[in-house]
Amino acid sequence: MNASWETFTAVPPADKLDFFRKDGRLYDCLFAQQFDRALLDRLCALADHMRLITKERAGDDFLRGLLADKRAMLYFSQPSTRTFLSHMSACHILGLRVMETRDLKTSSEVKGESLDDTIRTFASYVDLIIMRHHGAGVAERAAWVLNRSPRPVPVINAGSGPDEHPTQALLDVYSLQRYLGTVDGKHIVMVGDLKRGRTVRSLSQLMGNYKGVRLSFAAPDAFRMAPDILEFLKRRGVPYRETSDLDSALSDADAVYMTRIQDEHDKDGESGRVDTGPFKLDRARMALLPERTVVMHPLPRREEIPAELDDDPRIVIFRQERNGMWARAALIAHIFGLEERVLAYRRPS
Amino acid sequence: MNASWETFTAVPPADKLDFFRKDGRLYDCLFAQQFDRALLDRLCALADHMRLITKERAGDDFLRGLLADKRAMLYFSQPSTRTFLSHMSACHILGLRVMETRDLKTSSEVKGESLDDTIRTFASYVDLIIMRHHGAGVAERAAWVLNRSPRPVPVINAGSGPDEHPTQALLDVYSLQRYLGTVDGKHIVMVGDLKRGRTVRSLSQLMGNYKGVRLSFAAPDAFRMAPDILEFLKRRGVPYRETSDLDSALSDADAVYMTRIQDEHDKDGESGRVDTGPFKLDRARMALLPERTVVMHPLPRREEIPAELDDDPRIVIFRQERNGMWARAALIAHIFGLEERVLAYRRPS
Amino acid sequence: MNASWETFTAVPPADKLDFFRKDGRLYDCLFAQQFDRALLDRLCALADHMRLITKERAGDDFLRGLLADKRAMLYFSQPSTRTFLSHMSACHILGLRVMETRDLKTSSEVKGESLDDTIRTFASYVDLIIMRHHGAGVAERAAWVLNRSPRPVPVINAGSGPDEHPTQALLDVYSLQRYLGTVDGKHIVMVGDLKRGRTVRSLSQLMGNYKGVRLSFAAPDAFRMAPDILEFLKRRGVPYRETSDLDSALSDADAVYMTRIQDEHDKDGESGRVDTGPFKLDRARMALLPERTVVMHPLPRREEIPAELDDDPRIVIFRQERNGMWARAALIAHIFGLEERVLAYRRPS
Repeated sequence: MNASWETFTAVPPADKLDFFRKDGRLYDCLFAQQFDRALLDRLCALADHMRLITKERAGDDFLRGLLADKRAMLYFSQPSTRTFLSHMSACHILGLRVMETRDLKTSSEVKGESLDDTIRTFASYVDLIIMRHHGAGVAERAAWVLNRSPRPVPVINAGSGPDEHPTQALLDVYSLQRYLGTVDGKHIVMVGDLKRGRTVRSLSQLMGNYKGVRLSFAAPDAFRMAPDILEFLKRRGVPYRETSDLDSALSDADAVYMTRIQDEHDKDGESGRVDTGPFKLDRARMALLPERTVVMHPLPRREEIPAELDDDPRIVIFRQERNGMWARAALIAHIFGLEERVLAYRRPS
Repeated sequence: MNASWETFTAVPPADKLDFFRKDGRLYDCLFAQQFDRALLDRLCALADHMRLITKERAGDDFLRGLLADKRAMLYFSQPSTRTFLSHMSACHILGLRVMETRDLKTSSEVKGESLDDTIRTFASYVDLIIMRHHGAGVAERAAWVLNRSPRPVPVINAGSGPDEHPTQALLDVYSLQRYLGTVDGKHIVMVGDLKRGRTVRSLSQLMGNYKGVRLSFAAPDAFRMAPDILEFLKRRGVPYRETSDLDSALSDADAVYMTRIQDEHDKDGESGRVDTGPFKLDRARMALLPERTVVMHPLPRREEIPAELDDDPRIVIFRQERNGMWARAALIAHIFGLEERVLAYRRPS
Repeated sequence: MNASWETFTAVPPADKLDFFRKDGRLYDCLFAQQFDRALLDRLCALADHMRLITKERAGDDFLRGLLADKRAMLYFSQPSTRTFLSHMSACHILGLRVMETRDLKTSSEVKGESLDDTIRTFASYVDLIIMRHHGAGVAERAAWVLNRSPRPVPVINAGSGPDEHPTQALLDVYSLQRYLGTVDGKHIVMVGDLKRGRTVRSLSQLMGNYKGVRLSFAAPDAFRMAPDILEFLKRRGVPYRETSDLDSALSDADAVYMTRIQDEHDKDGESGRVDTGPFKLDRARMALLPERTVVMHPLPRREEIPAELDDDPRIVIFRQERNGMWARAALIAHIFGLEERVLAYRRPS
């Protein structure tokens, strides 16, 4: 497509989408904007189907056979137990063997190898690269390098730099759809550090794919949702309101998406100067919530959802976490062109 | 069973046993007291059977199919090559896929996640958690948390804090039974740092399950067997004697269980002030040992069994080590309710 | 064979070969001298066959079944992403389950265990040990210890100390043969840090197995090929010339083997005092190269092959890298006596 990386990075995201697709489907999964409504619906249906057929051993064996001849690299330059295990489990469900590079000391980077060469080395041995990198744009760069090489393999971005974490957004949508029946017409309240939380940013963008969704953003002043997302919602016609009064938003919420204060991104201790009390759940606030409402969280959590509330069935945070495994398994099946074969599998009746 | 962890920890161990059992068998394996005579006999028979049927490829394939749809987490906050590899091999024998968390940096603990949440996260993705933790009671806590959650998975304690290491005790019993034919009526000499060695403590307790066992404890004064174990043996009617004269004990020993000085637990260098010479094996002491006697060691060893003695067939320390793999495979098969299916498998004649 | 390690190390390498063979084939793969012409031809043919039959899923399934009942240990005391992943992939191709010890902190070495005991512990659980160790002779020692033990398992040396890296030499020969059709009669130009590069040393030695090979060594004065290799080539009648004029050597080269300056072995910064410009490739030098010539590199590379040249089809460095996986898979199949079964497998026509 483009001769140089410099040219390519100047292309607007929307125009890049085709470059990361092949044969009418996703090839590299790099940013949440790649998920349109049709694809979200297909991936959610696929995840549901995979989840259901593995309830029987025969279905589990069927899935595990599909990619038993393939190998995946989990390349994580940033620690993330949850995202790592979730992707690894997704690979296992489809039978992929997994190799991991978690510790930078084990990498050839210590011998001065370029990241491009490291990525091409991974591609020499595996059929799929799942990567989480602290550098912005690194996953996209990896996919670009491989797509131009004689041995391309798909890249899944498991969190790259400050912005993109598309598979988290996918699992959040899958959880909303699973527990609310549909996302259309729902009122979703996002709470906490909305400014620096990758997940609420991506999820907000994906909400543009659904009809009649309303968003409420409840955040301390210092951590309000960033203007670029608000602009995006305006353009897409998604109604939202910002509030510092969480209680008022809870009473007609369909889903409450809690987040923790991301103090690791503090520049000079600003988190310490914020009163986060109004943005935590407790028994009083749970009493305001309708019975039908679900409480989600990307985890890890701190005190914004006290563990003593966990027995409340509306708090689905660990079920949401496990949904990530199914959503990622569906994504991998989609990338490898297995969607039809999986959906054609029926449980013996 | 109990509403709070505080209430639960106040329950005496013997009354907790049912909480960690399901469907008439072990569900969580947390402390050596969970092994009664009947269970020890069953697990030893199961380990033997698994070991024998894998001598043929068909038997190996059979076992590897049993849990091919399951995943295990090996969560080791403490380094332990041997215990780690042994459990991992046991998982492989039964076809489990294994994920590992060995390096604390890769854990969400760095983002301030509670241990309870980390454990529940593991349980979101896997079907079995095998954990070794430096904290006392942590494995029990993990099992308690999971048993009260909507997604319980079994927990195997692979060494927790200063006291419990039940699978080591199991492999020691299996080795005794395998090499002595039976444990009943045997004279077992334990040597070395009996005060701080987890393995000799647990093994001594398990000896209460056998008839006519006699124990000799040969240790430096500073590292004599602790009073709680001696009390336990008195209550259970297991005859023992303490001695600082190793030679006298060797001549009618059936098994000699050597241990190293655990100087990593020194408070102020007490190991350096002890003469350990009288508690080491050498050619002269081997000459005192009956032909039938086996010499065991939990490994790693230092100079208490010099490598130059390794060719002596009575020193079974590496065979004992490999027995750990079989004992753990048997334990996992038991926990997953596979005992009957495994025992029903017969080699083609 | 020999009672003590001291006696054994005094034996000349050529007389040790039998000790590391069993049943007429390699058992331990420790040094490049173990590869004679007949074995090199067999392993290259085997690698080719394995590569071809995995182009169909049925062939891949066939290979993955061969060692599905076996486990391998990858024990890497030195970081080496490439060699690690390549061996791991080779194991996966044959169905072996892999356990890894990459981080020394996880090892029992911290409790003062001897290397011999660590190796025997690995052998207690696995069927193959692939090791890379910073210590000279350590892999040979490991193989020697295991061969004298009641539970020997094969050892593959994946790089040991400053000298031996036999599987790299094997993959280099396989790449030469694959891209040049044959190694006989070819002119091979080795470039860069020939003094300290393990790969060019081993490859030069293996060239003694082929007829009519000519070697050119183009290196800065400070990093010329060491006298022991030059002596060896003289004895074997392999013509070579040393030059500091790379351009003159390129015009009739069949293969150019580039290497990086190994500055991690500097004693006092000697690399910084060398002008490496004359020993790098650029567009001008590529123009001197015949169309048929291949450019190889053991990787990681630095500036000696600029990435901007990568689109040139003569630069086969990433294909060479992937050949390492096939060469190692062939080696493992050979060690386990599977050569005939693999070659007998034919793709359905």
